[in-house]
Amino acid sequence: MLNAKIRKSLQTIVGPERLIDAPEDLLAYSYDAFVEEMTPELVLLPESTAEVSAIMAIAHHEGIPVTARGAGTSICGASVPIRGGIVLSLTRMDRILAVSTPNRYCIVQPGVVNGDLQARLAKEGFFYPPDPGSYMASTIGGNVAQNAGGPRCLKYGVTVDYVLSLEVVLPSGEVIRFGSRNVKDVTGYRLSSLFCGSEGTLGIVTEITLRVVPLPEASRTILAVYNDLDATAATVADVIGSGILPAALELMDKTVVNAVEDSAGIGLPRHAEGLLLIEVDGVEEAVEKEMRTIVEKARAHGAQEVIEARTAAERDNLWTARRSAYGVFARLAPDCIVEDATVPVSHVPDMIRHIREIADRYRLRIGILAHAGDGNMHPLIATDTRDKQQWQRVEAANREIFEKAMTYNGTLSGEHGIGLAKTDYLPMALNDATRDFMAKIKQCVDPQGILNPGKFV
Amino acid sequence: MLNAKIRKSLQTIVGPERLIDAPEDLLAYSYDAFVEEMTPELVLLPESTAEVSAIMAIAHHEGIPVTARGAGTSICGASVPIRGGIVLSLTRMDRILAVSTPNRYCIVQPGVVNGDLQARLAKEGFFYPPDPGSYMASTIGGNVAQNAGGPRCLKYGVTVDYVLSLEVVLPSGEVIRFGSRNVKDVTGYRLSSLFCGSEGTLGIVTEITLRVVPLPEASRTILAVYNDLDATAATVADVIGSGILPAALELMDKTVVNAVEDSAGIGLPRHAEGLLLIEVDGVEEAVEKEMRTIVEKARAHGAQEVIEARTAAERDNLWTARRSAYGVFARLAPDCIVEDATVPVSHVPDMIRHIREIADRYRLRIGILAHAGDGNMHPLIATDTRDKQQWQRVEAANREIFEKAMTYNGTLSGEHGIGLAKTDYLPMALNDATRDFMAKIKQCVDPQGILNPGKFV
Repeated sequence: MLNAKIRKSLQTIVGPERLIDAPEDLLAYSYDAFVEEMTPELVLLPESTAEVSAIMAIAHHEGIPVTARGAGTSICGASVPIRGGIVLSLTRMDRILAVSTPNRYCIVQPGVVNGDLQARLAKEGFFYPPDPGSYMASTIGGNVAQNAGGPRCLKYGVTVDYVLSLEVVLPSGEVIRFGSRNVKDVTGYRLSSLFCGSEGTLGIVTEITLRVVPLPEASRTILAVYNDLDATAATVADVIGSGILPAALELMDKTVVNAVEDSAGIGLPRHAEGLLLIEVDGVEEAVEKEMRTIVEKARAHGAQEVIEARTAAERDNLWTARRSAYGVFARLAPDCIVEDATVPVSHVPDMIRHIREIADRYRLRIGILAHAGDGNMHPLIATDTRDKQQWQRVEAANREIFEKAMTYNGTLSGEHGIGLAKTDYLPMALNDATRDFMAKIKQCVDPQGILNPGKFV
Repeated sequence: MLNAKIRKSLQTIVGPERLIDAPEDLLAYSYDAFVEEMTPELVLLPESTAEVSAIMAIAHHEGIPVTARGAGTSICGASVPIRGGIVLSLTRMDRILAVSTPNRYCIVQPGVVNGDLQARLAKEGFFYPPDPGSYMASTIGGNVAQNAGGPRCLKYGVTVDYVLSLEVVLPSGEVIRFGSRNVKDVTGYRLSSLFCGSEGTLGIVTEITLRVVPLPEASRTILAVYNDLDATAATVADVIGSGILPAALELMDKTVVNAVEDSAGIGLPRHAEGLLLIEVDGVEEAVEKEMRTIVEKARAHGAQEVIEARTAAERDNLWTARRSAYGVFARLAPDCIVEDATVPVSHVPDMIRHIREIADRYRLRIGILAHAGDGNMHPLIATDTRDKQQWQRVEAANREIFEKAMTYNGTLSGEHGIGLAKTDYLPMALNDATRDFMAKIKQCVDPQGILNPGKFV
């Protein structure tokens, strides 16, 4: 599709050193954290909005697929260039353009790594709440494209709640800007929310203004240990139902705990059927009071032990265990599917029972990890996609998990997105008219279908 | 445009008692809180989604303008049927369908009055934060259409931050649903945000799922009194810049204070050049600590007096003063324009100086009221639209206020919307490509342009 003339025009825009077409180099852009892959014909690494615009104008004219990519950490295959064409790697657009703590915003390019932004903001006593598991690698552009979540989103909200303004290059190459530096802004359609979570199918985000928040003056972190998983889940529903909103409320079952211990050996209790990692933050006095209530509730539900992190190192240790869980579980087998069906929190105990029953029935190794406080379940399925028979069982089990979530008014995806992974499931969540409407919006914005083609819309 | 046959079809849907066509009755639907008006040909009061859908199917087929209306409190003319046709009054769809405090959501029809929802939620220890000045009259449907704000939005966020899911009737009559009962949900495009704030130009919202929040256990309210308006404004920027987020931080200047006293006589200090009404809420101990810091800052900036509300009645008294300010100011002259240019909070002191200078230069009576904590200014211009010469000065002054706001990266509207009031100003905030893009979305969703025609898009 990409003839010599087109390649030359594209090279004129970015120069030869930011155009990749050697087969062995292209491979690095053929996959993300999902199981599918496809090698693009060309990778371009633009450094400015003008370059992105010029590239899109050519792609538009020639009808070439363009898939934007940040760090390639997508778990739903959102950054896999499944129809080939151009991968637009935005990692070179990695500057933090402005930070205003008095006005609580920052302006960044899409290639800024979430963790790097956190480090910069921390110096000024601020933070940016959304913290996907991948935050040390994933980019703000990718976070915006997927409307990323994370543990802290329980209390603080998800990516879209922090996007104040976007600059977007449309499929035609035109550049639009909307929103402002103000939380209150009702000037025309709220397009920032439409693009946030659109998985690169509507435009290329080239500048992002984000709301930022002062770091809380205090935080406390505990680990509650249970010999019964139902009791673990019941604590979650009780704490949230009581009106407390912890900064994080994470759940791990025995399978996950032991996988973490096998790998990291940080001293988690291997005998536990369920663990809750709970963090509360805010004003010192409020934190103490809320944590007291939480500990009482944990004990009332039968927690055998409640361990408090007394130092920053102990806290980091607990979080390392939680954050490494997906990675270590993924090493148990050639492949690991991590799902993120989400249900209203009062149904977390039911969902956990269903997932365990489904795992038994399909003879699958499923670990349960969850941002439990907001009902965001992460069943981890260790598998081998080459074992066709097992893979069929995985697919059937997966579908059952989503069907159960739907019966509780849950969602197909709390924070990972639809991408390649869940397109087939969409009719469970959205009726024909709604899917048609999304397709109509896509058709209107990208009539040739060149942006991230082959994905959910 | 509406011939006998069409009228008869419409009457078949809603019945004769929910169809209004007597000229004297139509008048009540010809205006809102803005200065323009237009009498519709017909008003319909549907009671279900099916009825709204059937009405839209006919309007679509016949190309009839349809303007949805809640309580008609719009300050930007969003609910004025400026091209005639049908007004769809949604006030009969006023049921609270579900409240789940364990899962922190409620489901309502569009005609539920904001204040009624608050009363219902309060019984269960919860609240719905967005509290526009009109909350005792305005409907949730109207709040969603305008992405309404209010004093509490400083700490808690605006309407769009609370919309989890919507059911929408499209111009064609088709019914779509998206979002869910979960805060984390990335299933397809985030259409709830697109419709929220679209001022009835893209669809008719017929069911709304909202996030709700537990009532804080404590709150404290103070009034800080200044003999200098600059010092008043400087306190605002200092408090917010220090990292504290009050539940409300409202500013009133002398003109507004005296208008309130003339009308309500509740004992506000008439000599004050500036007043700040500050409320902090949360856990008791945190509230005390934060309020201590705020009072220190107020005194450091020269507040002459800091009065604390000691009882619920004293607190209500202060809030009544603030909430009545627009109403009493509006009675000073035949007309009152209330603007809502919004700027990053560090520029509040500059904006206040500019507004006063502009008022002097154009010889206009402009009172300054502001949700100051989030930079949401509300200059109140007492005027008489029949006095052409004065009206010209009002228009020129208004434009200058917005031009100034733009130089501080502000917005045209923080919470009132664009409607009829500010369409002419849009090019100040949005470039050609962005306005074209909005028009394209409108054209895609509503190709005949029948929904709320003549508005900003």
